[in-house]
Amino acid sequence: MSHFSFEDILQAEAALRPYLPETPLVQSYYLGDPDHKFYFKLESMQHTKSFKIRGALNKMLSLTEEERRGGVAAVSSGNHGISVSYAARLLGIKKAEIVVPETTPRSKIEKIEYFGGHVRLMGQNYDEAHRQGMEFIADSGLTFIDSCHDDPKIYGGQGTAMVEILRRNPDIDTVVVPIGGGGLATGTAVAAKALKPDIRVIAVQTAACPAMIHAYRDQVCYEEYPTTGSTICDALVGGVGVLAYEMLKDYADLLLEVSETAIGRAVVFMLEKEKIVAEGAGAIAAAAVLEHPEIFTGRHTALMVSGSNIDGALLRQLQAEC
Amino acid sequence: MSHFSFEDILQAEAALRPYLPETPLVQSYYLGDPDHKFYFKLESMQHTKSFKIRGALNKMLSLTEEERRGGVAAVSSGNHGISVSYAARLLGIKKAEIVVPETTPRSKIEKIEYFGGHVRLMGQNYDEAHRQGMEFIADSGLTFIDSCHDDPKIYGGQGTAMVEILRRNPDIDTVVVPIGGGGLATGTAVAAKALKPDIRVIAVQTAACPAMIHAYRDQVCYEEYPTTGSTICDALVGGVGVLAYEMLKDYADLLLEVSETAIGRAVVFMLEKEKIVAEGAGAIAAAAVLEHPEIFTGRHTALMVSGSNIDGALLRQLQAEC
Repeated sequence: MSHFSFEDILQAEAALRPYLPETPLVQSYYLGDPDHKFYFKLESMQHTKSFKIRGALNKMLSLTEEERRGGVAAVSSGNHGISVSYAARLLGIKKAEIVVPETTPRSKIEKIEYFGGHVRLMGQNYDEAHRQGMEFIADSGLTFIDSCHDDPKIYGGQGTAMVEILRRNPDIDTVVVPIGGGGLATGTAVAAKALKPDIRVIAVQTAACPAMIHAYRDQVCYEEYPTTGSTICDALVGGVGVLAYEMLKDYADLLLEVSETAIGRAVVFMLEKEKIVAEGAGAIAAAAVLEHPEIFTGRHTALMVSGSNIDGALLRQLQAEC
Repeated sequence: MSHFSFEDILQAEAALRPYLPETPLVQSYYLGDPDHKFYFKLESMQHTKSFKIRGALNKMLSLTEEERRGGVAAVSSGNHGISVSYAARLLGIKKAEIVVPETTPRSKIEKIEYFGGHVRLMGQNYDEAHRQGMEFIADSGLTFIDSCHDDPKIYGGQGTAMVEILRRNPDIDTVVVPIGGGGLATGTAVAAKALKPDIRVIAVQTAACPAMIHAYRDQVCYEEYPTTGSTICDALVGGVGVLAYEMLKDYADLLLEVSETAIGRAVVFMLEKEKIVAEGAGAIAAAAVLEHPEIFTGRHTALMVSGSNIDGALLRQLQAEC
């Protein structure tokens, strides 16, 4: 297992600063009261519309000239691919091959292509895309930019959002963060505990794919994990990273599972009440608050809005259901 | 006519700085190309969800202790009322009476009440509400906080958004701003020309209520003006301010009228493509770009997204129509 610590996050912070503007931390309009506030960290407003640019760009800044010339490749449920494509353009890397599952939302595929990356559709889900994609990449001579599994450059980048949160508002005493592979959750937790040891870190999974919760229950690091039924959290499917599995047991104070119904309602709440566009994964922290408000009484809570790459058609469907 | 100049804007900027965080200026994802960029100024992300807080708070900061104790009143199509209500809470002013037309969107009424203001529904449109509201206010002993007509404190506040735009990105050479009463457009134009004399200021009205365009055509300052048909720009209806009428003829380079259909499409474009929630007035600058792209070739354009207080039901209707 790779080593990952707050040092990696500080290094990432310095490396990313010239490239990425700080994202806003805005107070919720509808959640909380004067003694009990909620703030949204709008990673949904990154130019790539998700936090994934932090890890991807940090990793790609560390490549040698030769690696950059040879090109890069990634396997992604979408957002990481958009970020690798965008970072490649930013750094003048000519070739970026992005493997995504055939089920990837159209809006994500369009954005990968928009920034100049080349999309390869493989497999019916993330785990299949990962397996087939890794075979393709192994033969390609491209440098693989892993979306989270075990790379301190990626985890370090993802942790920088939490540094911004506490710098902007040192009163934050609770943070709610989604878990997919675990890169954002681990980076956030490590940064949070380093800067404020008594902060409470709550990590949230969709009931459609509670890979980390079941990994701890079964004491097995599920590097692949099936999705049950359909999910609007296409960014939170598949298995978990080994590094995340090893670290979150010490760094997260609470793991929560929320229903797809609650997440759908939270997307509409964010849109129509808070006037913030969030994809399913981006609204899962709000869903946790709407489903379990009692956990947050008397706290000042930051909710990580991880991304906003949601298809218009899905948005309309969720609005119609609410 | 009152005197209004860049000095008023600089004074407002200093007065507002402790209260209002700078709003983001973000590059468009879909509009423009590398030589030809568009940026959204997200006044829609003010805590009150519109720029109106700038003028209202600046005005209310200038009240005497006695005026504050006596309470304030406003007539508003909604957003100004939300801002007066919020500013009253911020400054400890106990009484805020807000007169709005009976046609005001539910989401705006809820927000006025949410911040502690008291709503009075009067008249079927803004001009009726204004007439009836002024009679009520004259007898009430409350201090009237005018939404724009002729008050340099209000115009000065509205002009501060443009100062933020050029401080953040000095390359901006064009700004597109909606005209309702004209406070934001005039404040923006005066700030823009003071800081960058060769900047191009484009002011936009809905075809449902082109009061300023017709005022210049007819050389009559229409302080009241009827709306033709229905409009999704509830923030842009009614007549124009005398000060705005006198100044914009010198300060605006171009006045554009855009159709309600284009504005509806722009709301959906902003939501589903750019992932930004904008009300009709907030999307009118984007509508101008979508309808007249040739005007912006080779320019670096800031689009003023004036507000995001749109009802969920209207949003759904617009999405369904597109």
